[in-house]
Amino acid sequence: MPFRFEIEARDGAARAGRFFTSHGEVRTPVFMPVGTLATVKAVPQNVLEQLGVQILLNNTYHLYLRPGVETVRRLGGVQRFMAWNRPILTDSGGFQVFSLSDLRKVTEEGVTFRSHLDGSSHFFSPESAMAAQIGLGADIIMAFDECTEHPAEYARTRGSMEMTLRWAARSKQYFEGHKREVPWFGNGDLTTETQRHREESLEERHTQALFGIVQGGMFPDLRRESAQRTVEIDFPGYAIGGLSVGEPRPMTYEMVNAAIRFLPEDKPRYLMGVGTPEEIVHYVAQGVDMMDCVLPTRAARHGLLFTSEGRITIKNARFALDEGPLDPRCGCPVCARYSRAYLRHLYVSGEMLAQVLNTIHNLAFYLDTMCRARQAIERGEFAKFLAGIPAPHATPYRSHQ
Amino acid sequence: MPFRFEIEARDGAARAGRFFTSHGEVRTPVFMPVGTLATVKAVPQNVLEQLGVQILLNNTYHLYLRPGVETVRRLGGVQRFMAWNRPILTDSGGFQVFSLSDLRKVTEEGVTFRSHLDGSSHFFSPESAMAAQIGLGADIIMAFDECTEHPAEYARTRGSMEMTLRWAARSKQYFEGHKREVPWFGNGDLTTETQRHREESLEERHTQALFGIVQGGMFPDLRRESAQRTVEIDFPGYAIGGLSVGEPRPMTYEMVNAAIRFLPEDKPRYLMGVGTPEEIVHYVAQGVDMMDCVLPTRAARHGLLFTSEGRITIKNARFALDEGPLDPRCGCPVCARYSRAYLRHLYVSGEMLAQVLNTIHNLAFYLDTMCRARQAIERGEFAKFLAGIPAPHATPYRSHQ
Repeated sequence: MPFRFEIEARDGAARAGRFFTSHGEVRTPVFMPVGTLATVKAVPQNVLEQLGVQILLNNTYHLYLRPGVETVRRLGGVQRFMAWNRPILTDSGGFQVFSLSDLRKVTEEGVTFRSHLDGSSHFFSPESAMAAQIGLGADIIMAFDECTEHPAEYARTRGSMEMTLRWAARSKQYFEGHKREVPWFGNGDLTTETQRHREESLEERHTQALFGIVQGGMFPDLRRESAQRTVEIDFPGYAIGGLSVGEPRPMTYEMVNAAIRFLPEDKPRYLMGVGTPEEIVHYVAQGVDMMDCVLPTRAARHGLLFTSEGRITIKNARFALDEGPLDPRCGCPVCARYSRAYLRHLYVSGEMLAQVLNTIHNLAFYLDTMCRARQAIERGEFAKFLAGIPAPHATPYRSHQ
Repeated sequence: MPFRFEIEARDGAARAGRFFTSHGEVRTPVFMPVGTLATVKAVPQNVLEQLGVQILLNNTYHLYLRPGVETVRRLGGVQRFMAWNRPILTDSGGFQVFSLSDLRKVTEEGVTFRSHLDGSSHFFSPESAMAAQIGLGADIIMAFDECTEHPAEYARTRGSMEMTLRWAARSKQYFEGHKREVPWFGNGDLTTETQRHREESLEERHTQALFGIVQGGMFPDLRRESAQRTVEIDFPGYAIGGLSVGEPRPMTYEMVNAAIRFLPEDKPRYLMGVGTPEEIVHYVAQGVDMMDCVLPTRAARHGLLFTSEGRITIKNARFALDEGPLDPRCGCPVCARYSRAYLRHLYVSGEMLAQVLNTIHNLAFYLDTMCRARQAIERGEFAKFLAGIPAPHATPYRSHQ
């Protein structure tokens, strides 16, 4: 199945669609839980399936360091490695190199950085980052970019954006030359004879999709130029990166708007590293199709739970005798079975089951939110749906992993 | 349903039976996973159900300290509190008072101890330990005992055993006077009118079963005397306590044998705090019906996994590229889905999912072992089954929680 995106319904700028990958189809708008080290922390894969997770994100930087690309490649790629037979997306590693590693040194060639695990020295170039992502074998991979720091001056931001554009072209060139090296290339349902006659089709069916990334900091004209020039390089999908990095939320919306108008209608648009439940539906309203964020999973591990009645800090003493479910309007397995009193007890006792159950609920809440957004678009009732969502909090969350 | 034990098959000293509690029936021999703080660490309750867990153990000492007996009582008892609608057993708190708390002071009246959490001072007597267990509301509760330290001299062991006997009588007396205070007393399927005519039946249906505990250290004659005199007090079931406390394993078998011959055939026998997978089947061979142990769950959290091919230390580098399941003969959901390579990656990366999946597998292995033991007894093939189990390791595990 070659990568293909179809729009099925529109409502204003919002779209409902689906895309197809070598490991199955994904309905959009979609929220992608973050599974950094090939695991969504604390949640078994069958539970993710039951929750309706369509596609996961793995972090290239983390998997490159541990267990290493060669190990994952020899084990058949991330899907087989983590026993997840649905699509996976890997990020480029760029964001983590800039946010997690020490002593990084950026040149035109690439980035030298030290591992946050053991201080060992490593080098990522567009070419080596592509090689890593091809070896990991996710269905969707990302061009290597520089995530411009915030705040940054105009000249610095332009320079960074220009380098990201050059790195995007190098990423694509390397990918085109090496895309058959993906671990699962040639797997599939075609016979050998048919394969010979359909070589081109085979290639499309069994390679990854490489997305470009728009940068440009907090300057609308740079966002526009980055979008236009990234589109000129030509990718099957486009991400907007470098947002939700500490800027006020209205600025995030402005930057998304500045970029998204110059992204092609017929390609999926992926806003990286966002957001709260209230925010993600507003990004859908702007025409975003894909999002990922550590917020639901990380907040869950810290006892912050999202519900239809607002946020709950589960350790609060007022829940000690509360027999009700976390969220009376939630249909997830946690709300169906456990009381707030029990969940509070698990959390204040430091029990691992707290992390398991809290994460399951928060993911269910995000997935349900996105599911309802999609239904609203299909019914042409998205404005009404949006009106029922509380206004996003003014304070930005630093929600990247 | 009053507490009732039925033996369905015998093979040598081994028995297959079932007992009935207010929260359902339990087939024996049975292994009871330890859910210290009303959670089997890292495993959701529905997974425990899927694995076939029939009855759990909760620790009175831990729940007494957090969230407190009154909280659990007001929330309907441990079953409702932890959303587990199957039987639960609580220990007496005695073992934890002696092993976990600081500055304990033992008198005829009871034990003064300091919380391992905050150093606060508390007092357990047979009466207050019964009150705690009645408030927690498990289906089976244990008389308050002194777990004699090991090693201990004869005179000291006899004195301790004598006090445990006096405490057993006091435990029973308090229980008989207060058993209607269990949180779920009077719940059930009888109409009010029927209840009035069947008051005695109601009492039996909706109270707990209090088991006595045999002590006597490592002296066969004291084990015998403790068993005989505990039986004179008369309980619906009997536990053998104070073993697996560091003594060599042959001595454990000798002490079990010394006691069990003087326990009534028609009551369940519970050997507390044992053992390895190889050992538990040997205790079944001695006529033990119930066992609990933290070993499968605690070992799992430390990456030690039990398989039909022996023990596996999952962090071992030789598993880094091993695509096989943990145990090719295991039907558990972990072995059905994940590779050793992935489980190793999770463990060495410190991922919580390692603890979740390892625990599920080890519990499945224990439950399957006990299930096969029961089938062998039913078929009269227990000797053959036992011959297929490796000899227990000579080195004892200190496996209590």
